[in-house]
Amino acid sequence: MVVALGCLARLAAAQRFGDSGILEFCLTRARVRIAAISTEGRSDVNPSASALSQPATKRAFNFNAGPAAIPLPVLERVREELLDYRGTGMSVMEMSHRSAEFEAINEHTEKSLRRLIGIPEDYAVLFLQGGGSLQFAMVPMNLYLPGKPVDVLHTGSWTSKAMEELKKLATYRLAASTEASKFMRVPRADEITLAPDASYVFMCTNNTIDGTEWNETPATGAVPLVADMSSNICSRPLDVRQFGLIFSGAQKNLGPSGVTVVILRRDLAERAGDKVAKILQYRTHMKEHSLYHTPPTFAVYMMGLVLDWIEAEGGLAAIGKRNASKAKLLYDAIEASGYYQCPIEHDSRSRMNVVFRVAGGDEAIEKKFVQEAEAAGIIGIKGHRSVGGMRASLYNAVPPEAVEALVGFMRDFERRKG
Amino acid sequence: MVVALGCLARLAAAQRFGDSGILEFCLTRARVRIAAISTEGRSDVNPSASALSQPATKRAFNFNAGPAAIPLPVLERVREELLDYRGTGMSVMEMSHRSAEFEAINEHTEKSLRRLIGIPEDYAVLFLQGGGSLQFAMVPMNLYLPGKPVDVLHTGSWTSKAMEELKKLATYRLAASTEASKFMRVPRADEITLAPDASYVFMCTNNTIDGTEWNETPATGAVPLVADMSSNICSRPLDVRQFGLIFSGAQKNLGPSGVTVVILRRDLAERAGDKVAKILQYRTHMKEHSLYHTPPTFAVYMMGLVLDWIEAEGGLAAIGKRNASKAKLLYDAIEASGYYQCPIEHDSRSRMNVVFRVAGGDEAIEKKFVQEAEAAGIIGIKGHRSVGGMRASLYNAVPPEAVEALVGFMRDFERRKG
Repeated sequence: MVVALGCLARLAAAQRFGDSGILEFCLTRARVRIAAISTEGRSDVNPSASALSQPATKRAFNFNAGPAAIPLPVLERVREELLDYRGTGMSVMEMSHRSAEFEAINEHTEKSLRRLIGIPEDYAVLFLQGGGSLQFAMVPMNLYLPGKPVDVLHTGSWTSKAMEELKKLATYRLAASTEASKFMRVPRADEITLAPDASYVFMCTNNTIDGTEWNETPATGAVPLVADMSSNICSRPLDVRQFGLIFSGAQKNLGPSGVTVVILRRDLAERAGDKVAKILQYRTHMKEHSLYHTPPTFAVYMMGLVLDWIEAEGGLAAIGKRNASKAKLLYDAIEASGYYQCPIEHDSRSRMNVVFRVAGGDEAIEKKFVQEAEAAGIIGIKGHRSVGGMRASLYNAVPPEAVEALVGFMRDFERRKG
Repeated sequence: MVVALGCLARLAAAQRFGDSGILEFCLTRARVRIAAISTEGRSDVNPSASALSQPATKRAFNFNAGPAAIPLPVLERVREELLDYRGTGMSVMEMSHRSAEFEAINEHTEKSLRRLIGIPEDYAVLFLQGGGSLQFAMVPMNLYLPGKPVDVLHTGSWTSKAMEELKKLATYRLAASTEASKFMRVPRADEITLAPDASYVFMCTNNTIDGTEWNETPATGAVPLVADMSSNICSRPLDVRQFGLIFSGAQKNLGPSGVTVVILRRDLAERAGDKVAKILQYRTHMKEHSLYHTPPTFAVYMMGLVLDWIEAEGGLAAIGKRNASKAKLLYDAIEASGYYQCPIEHDSRSRMNVVFRVAGGDEAIEKKFVQEAEAAGIIGIKGHRSVGGMRASLYNAVPPEAVEALVGFMRDFERRKG
């Protein structure tokens, strides 16, 4: 199935922002689209050539949990620049990371992230490798103060993975856990007991596998709050000052896998002891503006394009509103049906990852659901193997039209099997 | 300037190999080229569309030291598949790393590397993140046996960086060093003194910055030899059995930056103590076939395409022969001129990174050389800031035509300034 999105809204957004980069971005997209229309159905155009220049490619309704959907205009821009980045005669991935061109890309991506989120100057922005999983180790290596256990807010599979590394590298305490509720909600404020002298508090703001999300950030006073935001960073407005350190793999809301964003209060980088490997110290990368060693240049470039796109869409406030309405559409359809059900408590439901089951949790029917959805071009809705059922991930780049298609399919499936 | 390469040789190579994947790869490329020719100069084709489908894009003569040139047919293939990978309706970077499609890509890349190099079954192949710089830390974390100092063969900037991490994580000994010769050669066999009970011996097979390369691999007996092959892996045939562990960032001969190849004898993965972070243990990734956490999926996919390309070019023997003749062309031109000089001893000269100066090492003239070369589309030949002068990196994807263009430019420059 073909997902076709207009560019007019984006153009309007760009004009509102008065950003010529974004405007150019949109205009390029419009040109490509016009070119496509003008060659469509022309029998005198060589078919191979027109296949290449054809943006109306078959595109799936992509609900993957990550790596996940990338905005179509970003992919189109990447395709355009792939063999020759703005007249350099090279692809971005063929450029030295020490070249003026790549340094400009690196800086553009950092500045865009700072502007979009509103990151204060006393916070550093780093682009690293290794994903959230390496951060589970780097955070204690850099921030743990011996004798001061880390306070963990345990909310499922990912905080569990983080604790596996904490066990090796530090000591920790459960400041709250919803394991007894099978992680179907996040802790309530009155369930959290924080130690005043913890090295830091660790949390995961959105639990991709479990389908829960924190709607209020716990206040941790003088103790720095460290958040794994891998699956909801840049999905709505964010107050960085509530956190000491935020990390996120890019592969859900920010771009392709292979680059990890770390936002940290600069003073915290000084905690690491000298015995920590240099490559694993935040201050190494802070000093070198993420260019201490060869960065994943192409992923950094793509993240910059995704950030441009978010800005053209209206920034975090607008994207947050759209994400909320996408999630509402799906949760409402589940509630209204009586046939589907979402096991997650209302206040803890994630706007990013909607988990649901067919009533009674019949696994054979759920298998059929996933298969038939796939045949209809609806991809990536099988639940994680550890929880079963279905899961639809509604990251920034998933258009409302995709959610409408899913809801339509669900109604149809219910009519046929319910 | 435009670098145009024929596909006939590649087609012949593919037929010789009887590999239908490679054949398809070449045929696709031929089709794209034919399409380009048939639309070239047609005024009735929409210009935007033809710009997109036009493979005869401006391409630089790219001598970057890394990230570096990618084979043009690989970039063309990536561009073709960017919005819809083989009918999935998704880009490779939009797919789950747990999907059947990506698992096939991951396996294809591993198998191609195994076949191309001839990697025995008792060696694991891992695709990690963090480049050679993270390996400088991971190797001692996993392979160091307390009380058994690492033997280092010190040959320049990169072994020096490796020692910075060794200092923090292990103890080491200089088993040889050419620092007194300003790293203008690698150690001779009789200069190396190895301890029989070292944890391992560490070397860098090609020194990107210094312009030297080992032409014989030192015999280390029962002590595992660990090699940083970041800048010459897959540039010529390789006997894996001489090594305990080989690592290499992809960004020179294998693809874009962001993925790191590790080839290690499986038994060595068992050395790591339990206190090593799980994400930093080789055995974690070995057990999970490089899918323990989200891999840099797009870089793994591209590496697979680059390996297909190497195979279609005739494999490591053929590519090694071509690399030798490219290097000979440039070194001979330097020797013959009297105007240029290469400071590196003959037996240690790298076939990957050719460093040279203008006679007398006049920095003002060298600056002019680099500027005028750039104006002529010859990119990336400024020497590393730590050694000065010029450096041309001649990795696999740099075509002989590019070296001819450089040599032609050098002659012309000499005539004008010499």
